[in-house]
Amino acid sequence: MKDFKTVTISLGARSYNIIVGPSLINKAAEFIFPIISHQPLIVVTDNNVGKLHLESLSKSLANAKINFVVIQLNPGETTKNFTVLNELIQSIFDVGIERETTLLALGGGVVGDITGFAASVILRGINFIQIPTTLLAQVDSSVGGKTGINTAHGKNLVGSFYQPKLVLSDTFILKTLPRRQLLAGYAEIVKYGLLGHAKFFEWLELNGPSIIKGDEKLQRDAIVKSCQIKSAIVAEDEHETGKRALLNLGHTFAHALEGELNFGSQLLHGEAVAIGMVMAYDLSERMGLCQSSEVERVRSHLVSIGLPTEIKSIPHHQFSSIALLERMFRDKKVKNKQLTLVLARKIGEVFIEKDVPISEIKSFLKDATTR
Amino acid sequence: MKDFKTVTISLGARSYNIIVGPSLINKAAEFIFPIISHQPLIVVTDNNVGKLHLESLSKSLANAKINFVVIQLNPGETTKNFTVLNELIQSIFDVGIERETTLLALGGGVVGDITGFAASVILRGINFIQIPTTLLAQVDSSVGGKTGINTAHGKNLVGSFYQPKLVLSDTFILKTLPRRQLLAGYAEIVKYGLLGHAKFFEWLELNGPSIIKGDEKLQRDAIVKSCQIKSAIVAEDEHETGKRALLNLGHTFAHALEGELNFGSQLLHGEAVAIGMVMAYDLSERMGLCQSSEVERVRSHLVSIGLPTEIKSIPHHQFSSIALLERMFRDKKVKNKQLTLVLARKIGEVFIEKDVPISEIKSFLKDATTR
Repeated sequence: MKDFKTVTISLGARSYNIIVGPSLINKAAEFIFPIISHQPLIVVTDNNVGKLHLESLSKSLANAKINFVVIQLNPGETTKNFTVLNELIQSIFDVGIERETTLLALGGGVVGDITGFAASVILRGINFIQIPTTLLAQVDSSVGGKTGINTAHGKNLVGSFYQPKLVLSDTFILKTLPRRQLLAGYAEIVKYGLLGHAKFFEWLELNGPSIIKGDEKLQRDAIVKSCQIKSAIVAEDEHETGKRALLNLGHTFAHALEGELNFGSQLLHGEAVAIGMVMAYDLSERMGLCQSSEVERVRSHLVSIGLPTEIKSIPHHQFSSIALLERMFRDKKVKNKQLTLVLARKIGEVFIEKDVPISEIKSFLKDATTR
Repeated sequence: MKDFKTVTISLGARSYNIIVGPSLINKAAEFIFPIISHQPLIVVTDNNVGKLHLESLSKSLANAKINFVVIQLNPGETTKNFTVLNELIQSIFDVGIERETTLLALGGGVVGDITGFAASVILRGINFIQIPTTLLAQVDSSVGGKTGINTAHGKNLVGSFYQPKLVLSDTFILKTLPRRQLLAGYAEIVKYGLLGHAKFFEWLELNGPSIIKGDEKLQRDAIVKSCQIKSAIVAEDEHETGKRALLNLGHTFAHALEGELNFGSQLLHGEAVAIGMVMAYDLSERMGLCQSSEVERVRSHLVSIGLPTEIKSIPHHQFSSIALLERMFRDKKVKNKQLTLVLARKIGEVFIEKDVPISEIKSFLKDATTR
């Protein structure tokens, strides 16, 4: 019996499938074998993920007689830099590759982003498969082809749009995920409800707790729905010249918070997004765009799940509103020195505001950092 | 009176114009102003080119009140590496940029390739304008969107396909070009005749000497025709999955020769291509594909212009046929360990051969390196 679901990302010649279901790593070769034309396959992972999942993947590949080579990176966001990218690319050339070579990223967003970027620039583009091993990567970074690394100036400032040939999202992997990581991924799932699907948000209000508790069937449904919502937006606007920016709901705030903490582990990206989304709704209410009952519903769902929703809940750091504002202006979304933000009218209805008055944001940040 | 010609590269949303004519650097702002939406413009050049042409460009930009910032790189192929790319990207972020920022590459292939690559990955793609300052760059690297850097494993092994918004090819620049550089660029022009336009090759046999002597009108026609031929191929096959490989006529040999010399200045790329093209015709004759009269015609035109056509004419190096063969197999064009070469039936008719017998190439290289 087929126990997996398929989401097709429709991008013409760059279309690909996301397969979602249990134990996909154990069956990885079934899906991989038909789409690779050259061996060895080059598997890129990090030491933490490697310990947990490399054995299952290796077994599956070996059983299918797929030759493969493994490159292990250090875990963590600090891996996403120019030096590691260079080393990774050199290691891949050391293996000996051809245009038909495939890179397989086994890991979370960091491994996926840097491996995808490497795949996009090696020989100006070689094949790329992703097996995302965090909920966050399954619902966000593995959909839509954004790859990249961080620089001293900020997060994901260097990268490419590059689509994988296949994504395998194994729901059983979520059992090995620390609860904090699971919650962080859940925040991005909530985002998809907020940005255009009020019914999905309602469904999450109902099923969120079971998803977090580990109900595989509900997890699968939530991942599939998230991928469908994201892919519909990406299909319309692959290179983010318009609508795709909606996916940044909460992210300009989130990136500023993460930046102030040097992307350290006291604030996971999904946690920052949870706080950022509430901030976006809060600011929208303040600007008279959105009713307070909507803001409260967003906040209370996130709180009920166990996600942070306020800056003050971030431990060990006193945030400065000026520093946050400066970071927001250094974000990629700045155009002609105007700050573009995703603001909300209600749950399920957000929009891109290209010219938010700076004075408004300033006083908002001041209150948000002091209350 | 309009004294420039326009070649439109048709690539849908990524289409752009190449303008060819005299004194375009002095009038650069006229063409640039309408297509930039954010300032400062960031000009990337190298110290040599800067000395020759930066003043004219600056004057034009200043007259049009376009703010700009200049970043100067060290000249030469060794600049095309990961470290310099990283430094360049950091310098660009230091200037302070937005998605609408434009990079302008003022220089030869090296400056164009590394700046184009930087433009393609900064914020996942910002605008890019090229003012190629060598004949080689005007007829080859500025057409078709290949960008890249070299690695320890070879030339242009890391890069992207990324189209500029505009190319300004100033024919007066060619007056400042050393004769050897001019000849090297001319070799790529000859390539366009050989790979599909026998009539253009005939025209070159007739007009080549005047082009080299500096006839601006003929230079313009040769550049325009070259860009048209290349762009027609690129429009059909932007990402080199098929026909675009024809543009590699002579290049697999050329890259091997250049690689053996660490891309040093004793052999310019265009010189290597001249030798490589004759080698491709020679090998084709040996394999019974092409008549010797055709080979002789190619050789004698290149010789008459003053270009090298034999390995032995490269000074200060004894080439090993084994080393060359190894390099050819490390080239990007290798697929399933088969060597793909562009071979010739006659002048104006070349084709892609995916499975050239290794024994054939081996003995050919042995003769070519020893005779």
